[in-house]
Amino acid sequence: MNDWGQAAFNPRCVALIGASAKPGKLGQVLMRNLTEGYPGTLLPINPGEAEIMGRPAYPRLQDAPGPVDLAVIALPPEACVEAMRDCAQVGVCVALVLSAGFAEVGPQGRALQEALVAAARAGGVRLIGPNCFGLYNCNLGLNASMGLGLPPRGGDISLVTQSGAYGMAIFVLAQERHLRFAKVLSHGNKADLTDHEILDYFEHDDETRVLCLFLESVSDGHAFYEALKRVAWKKPVVITKTGRSAAGQRAAASHTAALTGDASAFLTAVRQAGAILAESGLEMLDIAEGLSRQPLPPGCRVGIITNSGGTGVELADLCERLGLTVPELRAETQARIAQLIPPYASPRNPVDVTPAWARFPEMYAGSIEALYEDDEVDVIMPILLQRSALMRENVEAVRDAVLRCQRERGIARPTYVCWVTGRDGADNQALLQEAGIPVYEWPERTARAAAVIAAYAEARRARSAAGAAPEPPPPGARQQAARIIAAARAQGRTLLFEAEVKALLAAYGAAVPQERLCTTPAEAQAAAETLGPLCVMKIVSPDISHKSEVDGVRVGVSPEQVGAAFEALLATVRAAQPAARILGVSVQELVSGQEVIIGGLRDREFGPLLLFGLGGVFVETLRDVTYRLVPAGADELRAMIHEVRGYPLLAGTRGRAPADLEALTRTLQAAAWLLVELPEVIELDLNPVFVGPKGAIVADGRALLAGDEGAKP
Amino acid sequence: MNDWGQAAFNPRCVALIGASAKPGKLGQVLMRNLTEGYPGTLLPINPGEAEIMGRPAYPRLQDAPGPVDLAVIALPPEACVEAMRDCAQVGVCVALVLSAGFAEVGPQGRALQEALVAAARAGGVRLIGPNCFGLYNCNLGLNASMGLGLPPRGGDISLVTQSGAYGMAIFVLAQERHLRFAKVLSHGNKADLTDHEILDYFEHDDETRVLCLFLESVSDGHAFYEALKRVAWKKPVVITKTGRSAAGQRAAASHTAALTGDASAFLTAVRQAGAILAESGLEMLDIAEGLSRQPLPPGCRVGIITNSGGTGVELADLCERLGLTVPELRAETQARIAQLIPPYASPRNPVDVTPAWARFPEMYAGSIEALYEDDEVDVIMPILLQRSALMRENVEAVRDAVLRCQRERGIARPTYVCWVTGRDGADNQALLQEAGIPVYEWPERTARAAAVIAAYAEARRARSAAGAAPEPPPPGARQQAARIIAAARAQGRTLLFEAEVKALLAAYGAAVPQERLCTTPAEAQAAAETLGPLCVMKIVSPDISHKSEVDGVRVGVSPEQVGAAFEALLATVRAAQPAARILGVSVQELVSGQEVIIGGLRDREFGPLLLFGLGGVFVETLRDVTYRLVPAGADELRAMIHEVRGYPLLAGTRGRAPADLEALTRTLQAAAWLLVELPEVIELDLNPVFVGPKGAIVADGRALLAGDEGAKP
Repeated sequence: MNDWGQAAFNPRCVALIGASAKPGKLGQVLMRNLTEGYPGTLLPINPGEAEIMGRPAYPRLQDAPGPVDLAVIALPPEACVEAMRDCAQVGVCVALVLSAGFAEVGPQGRALQEALVAAARAGGVRLIGPNCFGLYNCNLGLNASMGLGLPPRGGDISLVTQSGAYGMAIFVLAQERHLRFAKVLSHGNKADLTDHEILDYFEHDDETRVLCLFLESVSDGHAFYEALKRVAWKKPVVITKTGRSAAGQRAAASHTAALTGDASAFLTAVRQAGAILAESGLEMLDIAEGLSRQPLPPGCRVGIITNSGGTGVELADLCERLGLTVPELRAETQARIAQLIPPYASPRNPVDVTPAWARFPEMYAGSIEALYEDDEVDVIMPILLQRSALMRENVEAVRDAVLRCQRERGIARPTYVCWVTGRDGADNQALLQEAGIPVYEWPERTARAAAVIAAYAEARRARSAAGAAPEPPPPGARQQAARIIAAARAQGRTLLFEAEVKALLAAYGAAVPQERLCTTPAEAQAAAETLGPLCVMKIVSPDISHKSEVDGVRVGVSPEQVGAAFEALLATVRAAQPAARILGVSVQELVSGQEVIIGGLRDREFGPLLLFGLGGVFVETLRDVTYRLVPAGADELRAMIHEVRGYPLLAGTRGRAPADLEALTRTLQAAAWLLVELPEVIELDLNPVFVGPKGAIVADGRALLAGDEGAKP
Repeated sequence: MNDWGQAAFNPRCVALIGASAKPGKLGQVLMRNLTEGYPGTLLPINPGEAEIMGRPAYPRLQDAPGPVDLAVIALPPEACVEAMRDCAQVGVCVALVLSAGFAEVGPQGRALQEALVAAARAGGVRLIGPNCFGLYNCNLGLNASMGLGLPPRGGDISLVTQSGAYGMAIFVLAQERHLRFAKVLSHGNKADLTDHEILDYFEHDDETRVLCLFLESVSDGHAFYEALKRVAWKKPVVITKTGRSAAGQRAAASHTAALTGDASAFLTAVRQAGAILAESGLEMLDIAEGLSRQPLPPGCRVGIITNSGGTGVELADLCERLGLTVPELRAETQARIAQLIPPYASPRNPVDVTPAWARFPEMYAGSIEALYEDDEVDVIMPILLQRSALMRENVEAVRDAVLRCQRERGIARPTYVCWVTGRDGADNQALLQEAGIPVYEWPERTARAAAVIAAYAEARRARSAAGAAPEPPPPGARQQAARIIAAARAQGRTLLFEAEVKALLAAYGAAVPQERLCTTPAEAQAAAETLGPLCVMKIVSPDISHKSEVDGVRVGVSPEQVGAAFEALLATVRAAQPAARILGVSVQELVSGQEVIIGGLRDREFGPLLLFGLGGVFVETLRDVTYRLVPAGADELRAMIHEVRGYPLLAGTRGRAPADLEALTRTLQAAAWLLVELPEVIELDLNPVFVGPKGAIVADGRALLAGDEGAKP
C-alpha cells in the first residue's frame, strides 16, 4: 500500500526535480523553502549542476541515493512526464507537480495530464497536482510550496484548498491573525489523488483538530460524502464551496479544469455529513479560529460586555437575528456586576461599562469573571472598541480574566472578542490572539462566527444522542420489486404505470389506496361500491404520463355516477390524445389529508437523492423542498419533515389535528429504500401523498427506469 | 426663526462653557479641538481663569462679547441647567451639551434633563444632546466634539449617529480608509432637536451628497418618514438601525433612554422613503464610500478581473447570490482581452489573468479599459490579491486606467476594488482610496456593497419614472363614513359589524358582495333566490367578532337549503355563546377567486400602516405579508402585490388565469384612504378578499374604533 499521506507530509527524504539556484526560477523558490526548516534529507536534481545552495545535486533521480518518499517536480510541463517516469522507476511514493500547463489550458494540456497520470500509475506513484501551490507540514518545518516563508509550529487547523492563490492569501492573513496551521495542501487539478483519499488521511491525522476545505469541484461525490461523514464525526470540518453560480462554474471550468457538481446535492451532502458550510473563505477561517482555540459553547446564550452602548446593541441585534440569544442576566450576576460599574451603567446584558475608561481593566475583567460564573451564559463576548482596545492594561486584563476562568478554574465556555478599532490596535490584538482568544473585527463577523459555531455544537450534541445508522430494507422487497420492473421492461417500457409504482412502494412498506383496474362501466361500478361512498377514477395508458394534462382524472365520484363517468372519461381522453393506447380506468379509494410530495433522483456525483416538500403552492410557487442523500437514518428522514417552511401545516395549527408524522417517515423510508436498492430507477415522483391524522397514503406516482433518459418528459 | 443648523455647523462665534487647560478634563479636550482649525471667534468660559491656552477667558457667558451662535457645555450635569439659563439670557442659538448623567441614568437624571430642556425652550435655545459626542464640520475645520484630531477637508458624506463611541469608531476607521466626511453629528439623548429637523437641515446642505444615519430610536416617526422621503429624493441616505431585537431594545433603553419604535414600521418607512438600509455600521460605511466616490451603476452586470481563479469564482458566486449578474463577455471584448493575457488564461468573465505577475500592470489596465468600453458591463471589479496588490506598479496601473476611463473619457460606470492581502498592502490600498476608488476587503464585502448600490440605482431609476404622489380620496366618502361610524358609536359600539365595514370600504370605492340582513328563514330564502345558485350565510351579533369561532358561517348554501340552514345556524351559535345578542343572519352572494387579506393598523410612531398578504397558509404559516405607510402612491400599492412570495398565484401559473391586479390595487387604495381619513379606525382586517380574473371583492371585514383598545380580542 502506498501510504501517500505519510510520504507527503512526513517524508524522510525529498527530491526536488528542477532544483535551481537562479533567482526568479520556481526551482530556486522551492530550494529555499525546502532548506528552511525541513529536517529530513533533501536531494536537489538538476542535470547541469553538481551543487545547489551548498548541497550536492544529482543529474537524474536515478543517480541520487534513495529511497525517496516525496518528489517535488518544478519543471516546464512538457518535461514533467519524463520526470514522472523517473519517479516510477525508482519507486517514489508521492510526486507533487507544481507546474501549470495541463488540463486547465485546453485539449493539448489535457493530453499531457493524461500522460502524466499514466506514468505515475504505471509505477504506483501517487500524484498531487498538477497546477498546484504545494503543501506544508508546519509542525515538521516542511514547506514544499511556492509560498514565501515557513509558518510557525503549534497549530491544529489543516487547510485543503483547490485554489492556490486564494489559499495562499487566506494563509498569509491567518498568519497576521496569529492563527496556527498544522498542514496545508493545495491540490490544483486533482488529476489523481481524490477528495475522499485526502479526507481519509485527515480523519486519522491526530495533529489536525479542525479541517478546512476550500473546494471548487468534488471528485466522486458519493465517496466524498461517506468520507466526510467519518471525518466530521471525529472533528469539525469547515467547507467553502465556490462555483455555485453559472458565472462561478464558467470560471471554475476555465481555471482548474473541473466542472462543479450540482450545488444542491453538494450542499445536502455537507449538511448531512455534519460538516459546517461557510459562506466565504474568510468566514471559513473565522469559524476555524473559534473552533480551534476555544471550547465549544454548551448553548446559545451570549453575554456581551461593551464600552459603547451603540455597539453593544448592534452586536446583540445581530446575535439574535442569527439564532443566538442575549438574555437578561440573572439578579445575582447583575448585582455582582453593578458593584463594578458606574451607577448609571447597565449590568443587564449587554453589560455597558460606559466610557469611564480609567476603570476599564477592573470593569472588564470583573464582568468577564461574573459571566463565567453564571451558568446561564454560554458564550462571552467582550467588545473592545477604541479606548478599551487601545489601552494595553485593559486588553491584558481581558486576556488574563479569560485564561483564569478557562485554565485555572476549568470553565469550558468560549470567549470571542469583538474588535472595533484602527490599525494602531494591532499589537494589542496580537496579545489576545497569541493567548488563543479569537478576535473578530466588527460586530457582524463576531456574531456570524459565534452563531455558526453554536449551531454546530448543538447539532453535534443532538447527533451523539440519536442513532444515525440507516435501517435495513425489508427482506424480499427487492425481489418483489425486481419482478415488477422486469415485467415492465418485458413490455418495452421505461415509464412505470401508477399501479406499478404503488406496488413498488407497497413492497417497501408504504401504504397505497385500494384500487381496481376496470375495463367496462359495470366493472367500474362494482369496484366503486366496495371502495366507500366516493371514489377516484384515473385513466391508465402507457402513453400518458401526466394524466391531469389530458383531463384523465375524476375525484369524488359516487357509485351511482361511476358508470357515466367511465364513458365520459374515455371520451375526453380519446379526444385529447387520439393515438394513446388505453388499458382501462383505475377505480380507487378516495383518500384525504395534507398533500405532500416525495421525490427521488440520482445525482451524477452523489447518487440517490430523496426530496420532500408540501404539495400545491409550497412546491409549485415557493419551491419549499428539502433533500437527503440516501441511505439515511430515520432521524434524518424525520428532520426533512421538520425543516420545510410549511411544517406547521403538518404539526397541526389553528385546531387542525396534527398529521401522522411517523407514517410519513415510513413513507419517506420506503422511497429511500426503493432508490437505494433499485439503481435502475432514475427518477421517482410520488405526488400527491396524503398525510392525515392516522396514516400516510401514496395517491399517485411516476417512476422512470434507466435506459430511456431521452424520453424524460 | 432659530436656524439651528447654520449656527451649529457654521457658527461665527463659539462659547465653550467649562473651558479648561487641565489635562484629563473634558473642557481641555474641547479647548484643544476648538482651537485646532476653527477660524471663527472662540470664547472660553470659566469663572476661575482669566486666560486659557493663550485666549482670554470669561467668568460667565454674560461677560463675554456676543452674539454667540453655538455654546458648547462641558460641565458636570448638575451645573448644566444653570449654564443653559445663561445661554437663554444672552440669546445663544444652539447649545451643545456633551455631559452625561441625564435621562440615561434614571429618574433623577430624567428630571435634570427636563429642567435643561425647559431652560433652553424658555430662551429659544435649541439643544443638541445631552450625553453626546458632539459635532464636526470638517470643511470649516470645526471640531466641537470629544474626538481626537480634526478630520481632513473635502468630503461629502455626512454622518448622524446616536451612538457617540460607535460613531467615533466608525469615523476613525473611515479615516484609515481615506474616506472624507463633510459633517458629523452625534446627538445622544435627543432631548430637543428631532430627527426630522436634522433631516431637514441635511436636505438643504449642499456640502452633503451622501447622508448616513446610525439610529437607535426615532423621535416622531411620521415626521421622520416625511422628511426622509424628501432627503432621499435628493441624495442617497444610508441607515443602520440598532435595537431591533429584545436584547437590543433593553440595551438601548438603558443607555440612551430611548425606546425604539416597532421594527417593521421603521423598516417599512426606510424602504418606502427610498432610503438604503444597511445591516451594520460597517456596511453603512462601505455603501456610503461607493456612493460618494463613484458614479451609480447603470445596471447590475459585473465584470471581474482576477489573478486568482478561486477568488474570482467566489466573488462571482457572491455577486449572483446577491442579485447582480456576471455575464459572459461579448466576443469582441473577449478577443480584445485575449490578446493581453496568456493563451491558457480566461477572457470570459471573470477575466483570469493567472499568476503571470510580470505582466500584471498591462493585463489589469488593458482589461479594465476593455470592460469600460463594453457597454454590456455596468460595474468593474478588479480583484487585487497578494502579488497583484503588493506590486505598486500594478496598483498604479489599475488606478490610472480607471481614472482615464472615468475622467478623460467620461464613462459613468463605477469601479470597486476587491482587496485580499495583508497589512503590508496598506500603502498601495491608500493609492486607490486617495484617488477616489473604493477598496473593499475580501469578496463578500465587495459583493454586498455593490449589490446594495446597484439595487438602489435601479429603484432610483424606477422611481423617477413613476408618479409617486398619492391620489386624493373620492369626495364625500369621508362624510358617508363618518355617518356609519357615528351610528355605531351611538349604539355604544367600537367594534364595527361586517356590514358596516363593507359599507365603509364601498364608500371608498371597493367592491363588496351583495347581502341582505334576514331575521326569518323565509326572508333568508327570498334573499338567496336573488343572489345566485349558491349563497353564504353569516351570523350577525354585536357580541361576536370572530364568526367562524362559533361556527357562525355557512358557505355554498342553495336556496332550497337556506331555510333549514337558517334555523341550524342560530341553534349552533346559541349553543356556543348563549349570552350573545343575535340580530339576524346576513345572506350574501357567494364570491370566489384567490384569497388575499388586507389589514390596517396605526403605529404609535409612524401612523397608519397598510398590510397585504395572500390568505390561508401564506399568512398563517408563512407570515408572507408586506407593509406600506399610507398615504402612498398607486405604484407603491401595486408593488405590495408583487413583493409577496405568493405573488405567482396572482400572476397566473400553470394554466390559472391571472388575477385582476388593478381591481386589487383599487381595493388596497380604498383601505388606505379609509385609514388616512378616519383616524378613529385603529384596526382594520379585511379577510378574506377574493381576487378573480375580473374584480376583487371584500368578502368579510372587521374594524375597531379608538376608545376601546382594552377590548381588542
